[in-house]
Amino acid sequence: MKFANEKVSEIQIAYIGGGSMYWAKNLIADLALDDQLSGTIRLYDLDYNKACHNEKLGNSVSDYPEANAKWQYKAYPTLQEALTGCDFVFISILPGTFQEMESDVHEPEKYGIYQAVGDTTGPGGLIRALRTIPMYVEFAQAIERYAPDAWVFNYTNPMTLCTRTLYEVFPKIKAFGCCHEIFGTQSLLIRMLKDMEGIDGLHRDQIKVNVLGLNHFTWIDQATYLGTDLLPMYSKFVDRYYETGFEHNKDAWKTNPYTSANRVKFDLFRRYGVIAAAGDRHLAEFMPPWYLKDPDTVYDWKFGLTTVQSRVEKNAATADYYGKLLSGEEKLPLKASGEEEVRQLKGLIGLQSFVTNVNVPNVGQMKGIPHGVVVETNAVFSANSLRPVYAGELPLPVHNQVLQHAMNQELILQAALKKDKALALQAFVSDPLVTIGVTQAEALFERMLQNTKAYLPGWKL
Amino acid sequence: MKFANEKVSEIQIAYIGGGSMYWAKNLIADLALDDQLSGTIRLYDLDYNKACHNEKLGNSVSDYPEANAKWQYKAYPTLQEALTGCDFVFISILPGTFQEMESDVHEPEKYGIYQAVGDTTGPGGLIRALRTIPMYVEFAQAIERYAPDAWVFNYTNPMTLCTRTLYEVFPKIKAFGCCHEIFGTQSLLIRMLKDMEGIDGLHRDQIKVNVLGLNHFTWIDQATYLGTDLLPMYSKFVDRYYETGFEHNKDAWKTNPYTSANRVKFDLFRRYGVIAAAGDRHLAEFMPPWYLKDPDTVYDWKFGLTTVQSRVEKNAATADYYGKLLSGEEKLPLKASGEEEVRQLKGLIGLQSFVTNVNVPNVGQMKGIPHGVVVETNAVFSANSLRPVYAGELPLPVHNQVLQHAMNQELILQAALKKDKALALQAFVSDPLVTIGVTQAEALFERMLQNTKAYLPGWKL
Amino acid sequence: MKFANEKVSEIQIAYIGGGSMYWAKNLIADLALDDQLSGTIRLYDLDYNKACHNEKLGNSVSDYPEANAKWQYKAYPTLQEALTGCDFVFISILPGTFQEMESDVHEPEKYGIYQAVGDTTGPGGLIRALRTIPMYVEFAQAIERYAPDAWVFNYTNPMTLCTRTLYEVFPKIKAFGCCHEIFGTQSLLIRMLKDMEGIDGLHRDQIKVNVLGLNHFTWIDQATYLGTDLLPMYSKFVDRYYETGFEHNKDAWKTNPYTSANRVKFDLFRRYGVIAAAGDRHLAEFMPPWYLKDPDTVYDWKFGLTTVQSRVEKNAATADYYGKLLSGEEKLPLKASGEEEVRQLKGLIGLQSFVTNVNVPNVGQMKGIPHGVVVETNAVFSANSLRPVYAGELPLPVHNQVLQHAMNQELILQAALKKDKALALQAFVSDPLVTIGVTQAEALFERMLQNTKAYLPGWKL
Amino acid sequence: MKFANEKVSEIQIAYIGGGSMYWAKNLIADLALDDQLSGTIRLYDLDYNKACHNEKLGNSVSDYPEANAKWQYKAYPTLQEALTGCDFVFISILPGTFQEMESDVHEPEKYGIYQAVGDTTGPGGLIRALRTIPMYVEFAQAIERYAPDAWVFNYTNPMTLCTRTLYEVFPKIKAFGCCHEIFGTQSLLIRMLKDMEGIDGLHRDQIKVNVLGLNHFTWIDQATYLGTDLLPMYSKFVDRYYETGFEHNKDAWKTNPYTSANRVKFDLFRRYGVIAAAGDRHLAEFMPPWYLKDPDTVYDWKFGLTTVQSRVEKNAATADYYGKLLSGEEKLPLKASGEEEVRQLKGLIGLQSFVTNVNVPNVGQMKGIPHGVVVETNAVFSANSLRPVYAGELPLPVHNQVLQHAMNQELILQAALKKDKALALQAFVSDPLVTIGVTQAEALFERMLQNTKAYLPGWKL
Repeated sequence: MKFANEKVSEIQIAYIGGGSMYWAKNLIADLALDDQLSGTIRLYDLDYNKACHNEKLGNSVSDYPEANAKWQYKAYPTLQEALTGCDFVFISILPGTFQEMESDVHEPEKYGIYQAVGDTTGPGGLIRALRTIPMYVEFAQAIERYAPDAWVFNYTNPMTLCTRTLYEVFPKIKAFGCCHEIFGTQSLLIRMLKDMEGIDGLHRDQIKVNVLGLNHFTWIDQATYLGTDLLPMYSKFVDRYYETGFEHNKDAWKTNPYTSANRVKFDLFRRYGVIAAAGDRHLAEFMPPWYLKDPDTVYDWKFGLTTVQSRVEKNAATADYYGKLLSGEEKLPLKASGEEEVRQLKGLIGLQSFVTNVNVPNVGQMKGIPHGVVVETNAVFSANSLRPVYAGELPLPVHNQVLQHAMNQELILQAALKKDKALALQAFVSDPLVTIGVTQAEALFERMLQNTKAYLPGWKL
Repeated sequence: MKFANEKVSEIQIAYIGGGSMYWAKNLIADLALDDQLSGTIRLYDLDYNKACHNEKLGNSVSDYPEANAKWQYKAYPTLQEALTGCDFVFISILPGTFQEMESDVHEPEKYGIYQAVGDTTGPGGLIRALRTIPMYVEFAQAIERYAPDAWVFNYTNPMTLCTRTLYEVFPKIKAFGCCHEIFGTQSLLIRMLKDMEGIDGLHRDQIKVNVLGLNHFTWIDQATYLGTDLLPMYSKFVDRYYETGFEHNKDAWKTNPYTSANRVKFDLFRRYGVIAAAGDRHLAEFMPPWYLKDPDTVYDWKFGLTTVQSRVEKNAATADYYGKLLSGEEKLPLKASGEEEVRQLKGLIGLQSFVTNVNVPNVGQMKGIPHGVVVETNAVFSANSLRPVYAGELPLPVHNQVLQHAMNQELILQAALKKDKALALQAFVSDPLVTIGVTQAEALFERMLQNTKAYLPGWKL
Repeated sequence: MKFANEKVSEIQIAYIGGGSMYWAKNLIADLALDDQLSGTIRLYDLDYNKACHNEKLGNSVSDYPEANAKWQYKAYPTLQEALTGCDFVFISILPGTFQEMESDVHEPEKYGIYQAVGDTTGPGGLIRALRTIPMYVEFAQAIERYAPDAWVFNYTNPMTLCTRTLYEVFPKIKAFGCCHEIFGTQSLLIRMLKDMEGIDGLHRDQIKVNVLGLNHFTWIDQATYLGTDLLPMYSKFVDRYYETGFEHNKDAWKTNPYTSANRVKFDLFRRYGVIAAAGDRHLAEFMPPWYLKDPDTVYDWKFGLTTVQSRVEKNAATADYYGKLLSGEEKLPLKASGEEEVRQLKGLIGLQSFVTNVNVPNVGQMKGIPHGVVVETNAVFSANSLRPVYAGELPLPVHNQVLQHAMNQELILQAALKKDKALALQAFVSDPLVTIGVTQAEALFERMLQNTKAYLPGWKL
Repeated sequence: MKFANEKVSEIQIAYIGGGSMYWAKNLIADLALDDQLSGTIRLYDLDYNKACHNEKLGNSVSDYPEANAKWQYKAYPTLQEALTGCDFVFISILPGTFQEMESDVHEPEKYGIYQAVGDTTGPGGLIRALRTIPMYVEFAQAIERYAPDAWVFNYTNPMTLCTRTLYEVFPKIKAFGCCHEIFGTQSLLIRMLKDMEGIDGLHRDQIKVNVLGLNHFTWIDQATYLGTDLLPMYSKFVDRYYETGFEHNKDAWKTNPYTSANRVKFDLFRRYGVIAAAGDRHLAEFMPPWYLKDPDTVYDWKFGLTTVQSRVEKNAATADYYGKLLSGEEKLPLKASGEEEVRQLKGLIGLQSFVTNVNVPNVGQMKGIPHGVVVETNAVFSANSLRPVYAGELPLPVHNQVLQHAMNQELILQAALKKDKALALQAFVSDPLVTIGVTQAEALFERMLQNTKAYLPGWKL
C-alpha cells in the first residue's frame, strides 16, 4: 500500500468466491464510487471462468468515466497466488448448489419443520455449516500460509461458524464477519422516529445502538438518537403496530419472500424488553416453533418463507442481467450498496476510526458467554486494529437462548472438524426447531446428511 | 459439643420439617445405631403437634435397650428457638400438600406433557420451586441470624434450587444438599459386576466414581473397582440389556411407580458415552419428551409414572404404621437407612475424613458451568470442612444439556425472588418438556400458578 | 436537560471541591468557550466561602462578552443540595493540606526513599489513599442517595483508588476517572513525528493509540498516524535521544520540578518494548528505585522531584492571581485547557460519539487483570453510555508489574475500608519503592500514619 | 499390571535420574517394605554406569530375606527404552553439578544477596530453572511419545517449574510434583500438641490441613486434630516460642545447615495469620530480604545457610557409604523414608483412595491464581485419578506475595522456552531478594548465566 495526499493506492485484495454474480457487483460499484482507495482485486473462485467474468466486468467499470477510482481486477487460478502478497481478503462464497439448499430448506418440511431461510440455524443451517466448515478450514490454512497478516472480511453464512472456523484453525488470524441486519434495525428505528415523532432525514450513524448476541440473533439493549432513549418510544411503537405490523411497503411480505412486517420482532420485544435486531425470517428460526409452526402460523406473523424455487428464479433473472453487464448491453449503476466494506477498509488502513458491529470471537465483550465463541457486538475500527467494545450482558431469559445456540454451534463445529456423525446428530436434536420425536429426527438428519454428502469428504456415511 | 474417648456428646441438631413421618424414622434409627455420637434433636415443624409426635417417637427409641446412643428429641415451637445454639441443621420439608402436587404432576397431562415425578424439573418442578423458594428464603435468613456457623444439610426437592436459595440469601452459609441417587447407580454397577464378572459382596464405597452434573441429572464419567475401569464393562452391559432392561425384581416397574428397568439410563449411555447417574424417572424429565411422550412411550422404556394417587395411598399406609409406632404397638426396627447423614456428621465433627457426592455452589469443580450455580460433584468431608473435588467437564453434548438446565434454574430463582410472573413464564416455556405451542403453554402455566397461589405471597396473580 | 437546535441547556453539574483555585479556572474557561452547552454549576466545597468565590468568578466570566455560553455558577452549603437533581458530578478535591503532603513526600526521604510526586503510589501515595478513601466513601453514599443516575467525573489522585472506592461503595455508579497523561504521550509522539519525519501541525486525535494499564502507569502497545505504525519509529527515536533525553525546552527539568527529559520513558521502552505513557516523575515511582535511588540518580535520569515547598510557592502565586481575578483586576483568558471534560459531557449527553482513555473497573478490557480493579484503557463515549474497548494484554514482564501494583492497591482499599493498620502496613512493605529493612519500614509507616491521623477517623492508632 | 488377591504385580516404573545415590536408596527401601506391590524399576540416567550401580544395589536388596517384595531393577541405556511400556515414571534428577550450584548459591553473596538454599526461587532458583527446563522439555516430549498414559511423579527442584514445563510441552500428561515440606509442618503441629496439650503419639494423617500456595511457599489456613481447630493453639504456641524458636534438637540450626528454629515461620504467622508450611530456609527466600539481609540477620532468625561446601562434604560421606552398600560391606536398612510414593502408587493403581498435597496446574483449586500455574494443594488420589480439592483463597496480603511469585515463574518459563535473555533478566530483577541496583543486578545476572551456559544450548550468550 502507498499513502500519498490522503489517498492510498496499490491495495491488494484477494476475493475468495470472486466469481459471484451478486456481491461482486456491489463491491465493484462501491469501490468505483470512492476516490481515496485504489489497487487490485484478485478474484479467486472454484470456477475460474466465473472469476474471469468479474475480471472483465470490474475492469470495464473502472473504465467508466464516472468511476472515481480505477481499480484493477484480475482472476487468479489458485488460492495461493491470489493470497500471496495481499493486504486484505474478502470471502463470500455459496457453499453448495441450489440442490443442497433445496434439501436444507425443504426436506425438514416433510417432517413438519418449517424454516424461513435455512442458512444459519435449524436443520438447514446445521447441514449447511457441516459442508461449509471444511472449506473454511482450507481457507484458514491457506491464509496462515500465504497471507498471515492480511485482514479477512467474511460475508458467507452461517456467519458465526465460518468466522469461528477461521479462528479455530488459525488462532492469530485477523478476521471478522460482516452483516447488515443491524443496519436494517437501525432503519426501522429511523422509520419509527418519522412515524412517532415526525423526525425525518436521519442516517443510521445517528442511531447509536449497543449490539449483542449472535449473528442473525442479535439484540439491542440501548438505542439513542441524540439524547433520546429510543426504548420507551419503541415500546409504544410496538403497542401501536403489534397487530398490524409495520412495513415499508404494505403487505410486501405476501409476495416478497425476503421481507416481513416486523411482527416477530415486536412479539420478541414484548416478551424480553430488548430489541431483536435481525430480520423476522432469521429471528423466527432461533426460537422454538412459535412463529414457524406451519405456513398458517407464518402467515399470521406476516413474514415470508424463502423457498429455494424463489431463489432459482431470482438467480435466473440475475444471470440474465449479469450477461448484459458482461456484454456491455447494460451498464452497472454506480450507487452505494449500503454495505460497509469500503469504510471498514479505510478504518483498517488508518484513514478513519469508527464504531460498528462485527462478528469476532468473544474476549469478554459479551459477559456470560464463553470466550472464543463468535459473537456480534460493536467494535472500534482503527489503523490495523479492530477492538471489540464491551457490550455487557443480555437479560437472563434472552441470554439463556443465546447461550444455548452458542453452545450448540460449538457442538456443530466439533462435529464438522472431527467428521463425527454422532456429535452432529446430537446438535441436530438439540436445535429448538426440532421438536419432533427423536426417531423421526434421526431419520430426517440421515436423509439431509446423505443429500449433502458430496461436500463431506472423510465422513463415514 | 464435647469430645471424649473418640466419642462426641451434646451435639445440637435443629431439624426443620421435624414433623415428618418418613425421613424422621430413618434419622432416628440411624442415630440409634451409632455409638460415637449423641446429643439433642430439636424438632421444628409448621405443625408443632407433628414435631411433638416425633419427640415422643425419638425418645422412645432412645429407650430401646439395643439403641447404641441415647439421643434426646425435643419439639420446639419456633424456628428461632430451634436454631439458637445448634451445631447442625437438617432441612427436610414437603412444600405444599398433595393438592398442589396433584396440579404439579397431572395438570400438564391435560396438555400432553407427562412427568414421572414432577418435583425437580419440568412444569411440576418449576411450580414446586416457586412455592419452595420463599420458604428457603426464610430459613436462610433465620440461619444467618440464629445459627450462622451451623452446618446445614438439605434434603428437600428441588434440591438444586433449595440449596441455591440458601446461598443466594446468606452467601456465607455452610450448606449442602444430600441425595442418594448416585448410591443407586453405584448399586447398579455392583450388580453389573456380579452379572458380568461374578464378583460378589461389594459395598458402594468400593466403586469409585467421578460425579458431575445437576442433582437428578448427574453423570459419571469415570468409575473403577480396584484397578478396573468400569466404563468398557458398562458398555457391554448396556449392549446385553439394552432391549430388556436390567432389574432387581423382574417387571417391578409395571407395578411399582418408583422404579424402572434402567432402559433410559442405557439409552443415554449409548448417546453420550457417560453414565447417567440417577433414576430413570428423574433422568427422563430432563430430556426433551423422548422418553415421556405419552404413556405408551413410557411403557416401552419401562419405568413408572409416579401418580399422586399412589403417593396418597402410600401416605395412608405410612400414617397407619406411624400411628402404631407412636402408640408402641410396633417397634421401629433399627436398621441403617442407607443415607449418609451420620457419616457426614462425623466428617464435619472431625471424627473421620472421606469423599462423597454433594450439592454445593460451583466454585470451579465443574468446568464450563458458571460459578454460583449449585452442582453435584464429589467433595471431601473433614473437620468443619467441606471442599469440592475437581470433577472436570462433561462431554460437550451432555454439558450443553446440563448448562441449559442450570441456566433455566437460575431464571426460576430470579423469578421466585422477584415474584415475577413474566420471568417464570419464560423459564416455563424454555423447559425441554414443554414442546407444546407457546399459547397453550401460557394457559397451562397460568392454571398451575393459580393452583399453587396460596404459596406465592406477594405475587401479582 | 433541554435539547433544541443541536444545543443543550439547563444542564445541572455538581462540582465537589468547587472551591478550587486551580481546576475551577480551567472548567470555567472551557465551558465559556463552547456554544452548545449551558446550565448551572453547583459548587460544593468543605469551605463554603471558597465555593462562593468561584460562584462570583464563574458568573463574572459568563458576563464576558466573548463567552459563548452563559453558565450560571452557584455555591451550595451541603452535598445533598448540590447533588439533588444534578445530571453530572465533577469531583476534584485536595485530600488534606500541604502539611500532610509534606509528610507524604518528604518523610520517606529521611529513610532514603525518594518520590517525585508522592500522590499515586509509593509511601506517599499509599498514605494519601488512606486519607482520601473515607471521603470517597461519603461521596459514593451521597451520590447513591441523591443522584444515582448522574455521571460522575473524577479528577482527584490517587485516581485509581478514588474511582475504585466509588464503585466499591455504590456498584451501580456511573463514574470514571479522567487523566491527561496519555495526552502528554500523544504530544511526545507528535513532536517525534516532527523531529524524525518533519511532519507538522498534528492534533492528538490523529495519533491513534491503544492504552492499557493503571493510571500514571499506563502503557501504549499500538500507536499509529494514518497507516504508519509508530512503534518502529519510536524505537529509533529512543536510540537517538536515549542519552540526552528529548525535551520541549532544553534542561527545563533542572528548574521546573514538574517536568522531565523523558529518559525514564526511553529506558522503559528499551526494557519492555512498549511505550510507557505517563510523565517520567510518575513512572519512576512505580518501579523499584532504579530511577529514584537518590537525588544524583534522579539528576542522571533528568527529571524533577516535586518538593512540597515548590507547591507552596506555586500556590501563593496562584492565590495572588486568583485574588486579582476575583477583584476584577485581571480577566480570565478564555483558552482551552486541553482537558476533555466538555467533549466528554457532549458524548454522554448524546451530541457526539468518540473514543478516549478513561479509568473504570475492569470488566475484561484488560486481559489477565482481575475484574473490578480500576484500569485505564480506551472507551467509547456515547449517549448515556461509556463502554470500555478491549485493550488486550501487556507483554508479560510489564503485565506482572502492573498486576503487582493493582493487587497492592486492592490491599490498600481493604485496609482503608476496614481501618486496619496491619493490612495497610502489609501494603506499605510490598511497595517496590520500599526496599529498606522491614523494621525501618514499620517505623516510617508509623510516623507517616501519625502525621495524617486527623484524616483517619475510626482507626486505632 | 496384574491384580490378584489384593496384590499387584508386573508394575513397570521408569526412573529418570535412576543413578542417584540418595533418593534411590529411599525408594528401594520403601518398595521392599511393602508387600502389595511388585514389578520392575527401569533405571535411566545420563550416566549409565550409575544406573547400573543402582540395578545392582536394588536387586541385592530384593534378595534380602526381610524384603517383603522382590522388585527387579534394570538399567536402561536410553530414555526411549526405559519409557516404552511403563505404567509410571519417577523423575528425580540433579540439574548440573556442584560447580553450577556454587554459582547459584554463592555468586549472589558477592553482591550482598544471601540465599539459604538457592534451588527454588531467588537468583539461584531462577538460574537453576533455566538449566532444568530444557531437560524437562525433553522428558515431556519423550513421555508424550513413548508413555503418554503413564503417571509421572516429579521430585526435582525447582518443583513448580519442572512440573509446569511438563504440562506446557505435553498438556495431557498425567504428572504431579511431590514434596514433603508439608509433612514437616504437620510434624511441627504434632510437636505443638505434645508441648501445649501433652497429647502424644500422633501421626501426620491425623492432622488435617488445608494446603494452598506454591511449592516451598505453601500455606495452611485450616488445621484440625479431631474436632480441634489448631490455629488458635498455634497462635499461643507462636507467642510462647516467638523469641526462642521451637526446635527438635536445641540449637541444631547452628551446626546443621539444613534446619531451623522455626522463627521465620512464627514471624510470618504473626504478620499474616496463616501458617507458612515449609522449612524456614525456603520460606525466607520468597520474601524480601527481611530474614536474609546478611549472615547476622540469618543468625538472629536462627536458621542455616546451606553452603555448597557443606553439600560437597555430605556428598563425599554419602558416596563412601554408597560404596559400602554396593560392595555389600554394609546392608541397606529397610526403614520407611517418610515419603509417600508407595501410597501414591497404590492410590493410582486403585488399591486405596486418600487425600494428600501435590503440585499440579491450577484448574480452579486456588481461587484468584491464573489457571495453568502449578500450585500446591490437596488432591484426591484414586484409581487412575488425581483430582485437586478446592482450597479457596489466601488472605489478600499473602495471596499477593504468592501471585507475584507465580507470575514471575511464568516469566522464567517463557524465558527458558524462548531462550530469551532479556525476559530472563526481567524475571531476575523482579525477584524480591534482588533489591540491589538494576545495573548491579544485570552484572550479577550476566555472570551467573555465563557460569551455567553449558546447560543453555541455543541461547545467545
